[in-house]
Amino acid sequence: MTGRVSIVGLGPGNEDLVTPQVRAALATATDVVGYFPYVARVAPHDGLTMHGSDNRVEIDRSQHALQMAAQGQQVVVVSSGDPGVFAMAAAVFEALENGPADWLDIQIDVLPGITAMLAASARAGAPLGHDFCAINLSDNLKPWSIIEKRLRLAAEADFAMAFYNPRSKSRPEGFVKTLEILKDSCGDDRPVIFARNVSHADEELRIVPLSQTTPDMADMRTMVLVGSSQTRIIERPQGPIVYTPRSVLE
Amino acid sequence: MTGRVSIVGLGPGNEDLVTPQVRAALATATDVVGYFPYVARVAPHDGLTMHGSDNRVEIDRSQHALQMAAQGQQVVVVSSGDPGVFAMAAAVFEALENGPADWLDIQIDVLPGITAMLAASARAGAPLGHDFCAINLSDNLKPWSIIEKRLRLAAEADFAMAFYNPRSKSRPEGFVKTLEILKDSCGDDRPVIFARNVSHADEELRIVPLSQTTPDMADMRTMVLVGSSQTRIIERPQGPIVYTPRSVLE
Repeated sequence: MTGRVSIVGLGPGNEDLVTPQVRAALATATDVVGYFPYVARVAPHDGLTMHGSDNRVEIDRSQHALQMAAQGQQVVVVSSGDPGVFAMAAAVFEALENGPADWLDIQIDVLPGITAMLAASARAGAPLGHDFCAINLSDNLKPWSIIEKRLRLAAEADFAMAFYNPRSKSRPEGFVKTLEILKDSCGDDRPVIFARNVSHADEELRIVPLSQTTPDMADMRTMVLVGSSQTRIIERPQGPIVYTPRSVLE
Repeated sequence: MTGRVSIVGLGPGNEDLVTPQVRAALATATDVVGYFPYVARVAPHDGLTMHGSDNRVEIDRSQHALQMAAQGQQVVVVSSGDPGVFAMAAAVFEALENGPADWLDIQIDVLPGITAMLAASARAGAPLGHDFCAINLSDNLKPWSIIEKRLRLAAEADFAMAFYNPRSKSRPEGFVKTLEILKDSCGDDRPVIFARNVSHADEELRIVPLSQTTPDMADMRTMVLVGSSQTRIIERPQGPIVYTPRSVLE
């Protein structure tokens, strides 16, 4: 039997956001590999072995997945959101590139998912309705100077911005600096959306003008979206809508 | 009966990429509104009226959807991909903001979908595995000068880039200029992915070094992805994988 690795996105949490394509891959898997809480989202079936592991071991986990596929297993690597956005797909390819040559024959598929920024954007309205960028604010894997440069250039380009991993317990100072840079580059009224646990039962959505944001409004389960200069708020009885118009006038 | 507008994403084309949440909204709709080819993707059922319209009439279509919902209908507005990314959600909110005050009481939900850049990225590997931006290259709704500024700043920020609507029949010169700007700002070897009709039966994927790109490689059904300076290619018997590593070394 020929082995295979499918790297799939489970979406932000709500099971109604998992695509049928991903469901089908899970239904025929022999092994599921991933971070514990994501593996826990997969329904067990006969012949399926779960391999949950801690975070920060993405390369070990990827090597394990490729090893099992090389032995003929049908392996599914799970990420939350989309596997190609700050998630497992890049880690598996890194392990593949640095691994034994015979791994190059393994069939590998990436099955997309609803990434957190799209789920958060949908809950708020359409803040990413015009040009935007996505930045991973964690400085575990890149120097802070690059993050800072990107934030300043993104503000100059007038992109809406989506921030993944805004604030870790061990390195909370990055998000403090991020808000300082934004306050320095963007207007006081710029809408900022803090979307925590989007699509889960305990989802929280907070829309705050930039001047009133504080670092404690975000943690690692929060997606932060920042509007462009064009982003608007519609006040309504059921709560505000944030959207970025399609047009920019000359 | 209280009316409602659900603005939903049908994903890039393959029905296995439509979320169960969107399927459920379509199953209880009384009216489906959207661009003809997207409305044609919706399965008919008793009591469902289809309202297909041409492109470039997004505001008329949005007003129609809101009017029907104000009269108690269960209206679903369909986009391909994700409704919040260069699609119908921003248009509906623009119509809402400029419409009669009683529309503010209408329940409006945005249901996310798999946007084209994530589907294209998954087919190629993980080119958007690190920080990236998404730019609509159409200059119908914004001056070309803004697009050019964003391209130059995105290259300076070393974002991977995803281009929507790269090249229309009526204005093909924008993509010519886009490739010139990229060739001026990025290295010759920078990988560029042309993904046409992603997830459809006639999908085409082309991976080309920037120096060998030509404008005719894209049309309006093509998603164009450009790697960052860190993006790598793994050559394999089944075809290359393009991915952007998670790390940037100091």
